Amino acid sequence: MKTKSGLPPFEHEIRVAWGDCDPARIAYTGRIPNWALDAINAWWEHHLGGDGWFQMELDRGYGTPFVHMSLDFRHVITPRHRLICKVAPTRLGSKSIEFRVEGYQDGNLCFEGRFVCVFIVSQDFTSRAAPPEIREMVEPLIVEWPEK
Amino acid sequence: MKTKSGLPPFEHEIRVAWGDCDPARIAYTGRIPNWALDAINAWWEHHLGGDGWFQMELDRGYGTPFVHMSLDFRHVITPRHRLICKVAPTRLGSKSIEFRVEGYQDGNLCFEGRFVCVFIVSQDFTSRAAPPEIREMVEPLIVEWPEK
Amino acid sequence: MKTKSGLPPFEHEIRVAWGDCDPARIAYTGRIPNWALDAINAWWEHHLGGDGWFQMELDRGYGTPFVHMSLDFRHVITPRHRLICKVAPTRLGSKSIEFRVEGYQDGNLCFEGRFVCVFIVSQDFTSRAAPPEIREMVEPLIVEWPEK
Amino acid sequence: MKTKSGLPPFEHEIRVAWGDCDPARIAYTGRIPNWALDAINAWWEHHLGGDGWFQMELDRGYGTPFVHMSLDFRHVITPRHRLICKVAPTRLGSKSIEFRVEGYQDGNLCFEGRFVCVFIVSQDFTSRAAPPEIREMVEPLIVEWPEK
Repeated sequence: MKTKSGLPPFEHEIRVAWGDCDPARIAYTGRIPNWALDAINAWWEHHLGGDGWFQMELDRGYGTPFVHMSLDFRHVITPRHRLICKVAPTRLGSKSIEFRVEGYQDGNLCFEGRFVCVFIVSQDFTSRAAPPEIREMVEPLIVEWPEK
Repeated sequence: MKTKSGLPPFEHEIRVAWGDCDPARIAYTGRIPNWALDAINAWWEHHLGGDGWFQMELDRGYGTPFVHMSLDFRHVITPRHRLICKVAPTRLGSKSIEFRVEGYQDGNLCFEGRFVCVFIVSQDFTSRAAPPEIREMVEPLIVEWPEK
Repeated sequence: MKTKSGLPPFEHEIRVAWGDCDPARIAYTGRIPNWALDAINAWWEHHLGGDGWFQMELDRGYGTPFVHMSLDFRHVITPRHRLICKVAPTRLGSKSIEFRVEGYQDGNLCFEGRFVCVFIVSQDFTSRAAPPEIREMVEPLIVEWPEK
Repeated sequence: MKTKSGLPPFEHEIRVAWGDCDPARIAYTGRIPNWALDAINAWWEHHLGGDGWFQMELDRGYGTPFVHMSLDFRHVITPRHRLICKVAPTRLGSKSIEFRVEGYQDGNLCFEGRFVCVFIVSQDFTSRAAPPEIREMVEPLIVEWPEK
């Protein structure tokens, strides 16, 4: 992934552990979307001065619930390496934001996913435009979706 | 477990699945306290007209956060049988309630646990006495802690 | 969803609980793909004489790891109703199988998802054709993907 | 906690997130034993050259399943601070090991727990003595259980 600024995308590290694995001795499929969500939350924390979804909802008064996720699983994930999740926004609509998350172990792409969130008012869950503070922060970070 | 009324204790069934198991091909330890909590929540639902912790907190205005849990793991748990969790209150204090949960598979005791909760006011998380509606419902259901 | 046989698709019931919800008082997004997986595993159990992924891998010698999942979230999910997950296969390829899962609460579609699995030999994780016993069981159950 | 060597105990950091919290806006009880287990696994990784339970079971041929856990919950846990888990062994028996885990946020003790594991042979789950390599590593790290 390449950002407009040329900077590498944000990376979030996951410690894959024994309890994440199933009897096939690889990470259970159901854990993977959760790691992608953890990585997106960590991306917000990194770019909003420590504020993740919790502070966004409770302190800033808006939220970003998910309306879509799709993931392709490319390679098994095990506890033998840390899982490095690269996260970047790929689109900022008037009322929505889309993320790309790529998970790597030992240099191999293990999963890639697309996640779409909408902006809402925390208090009543109604749709709203992306807050200006978010728009300003997100726009320079947008990456292009890779060509297949 | 024997209730004062002579009725058998409440039972909650868990479907243990592939994703609950670790590479040793048994349920991962971390899943077991969660099942015990699910069973206690189901016990509340059963005895409060369908209201579990969610409705208790949001509709009734009180909650029962945990201050203690202890579990002994007696037998491995696998997906080959349903896990039957027996739940009963063992003590009702002025401001607290204690539960016993026993998990069985195929007639074998797999785990037993003790869980202590306190009553709070939802809105400000302050301690409060057990609500009268709870006291009335719980008292006939109390079982004695089994002798070792 | 309509099956070729005219029978309604398999349904799996989920008890959504307090611990599944986030501070927005709705089920956390990360729980939803896990419920869809639980429903698919329950579908296998129902149609394979009680055998889910655990028995499939350990006793039958083959597995069905996921290579893709995509979900659209249509409506919030809460503990106020059971979540009814309808599951049906939508395609059986030579080496893969695709499922549709729809989650309903109180008659409202809450999520819908597409899941693609491939057949593997348990022991060495190599690709294989769908076992004949699976092909025979699955074919009459295939439903058409609904028109948008 | 004070180790015999005078060194501070091992610390493992947990990022508490939105998805770990329940509608009371604090970490859900069921998450806490899982974090304690993650911290114990990280303790093994730190002291066994990167080997956690996964490598212990698969590469070294022994495991340490849990036979007991007990936890006291002292203070609510939220995403507003990292959760620092201090881990140390408190006893090494001939065939078992006991751990103490303390979780802190912003200097406040949030939970403390006792965990007992037994040593087994991975292949057949039979009891065995603590391996010499473990005994040698663990003994200098043992701390005394704090006086109440």
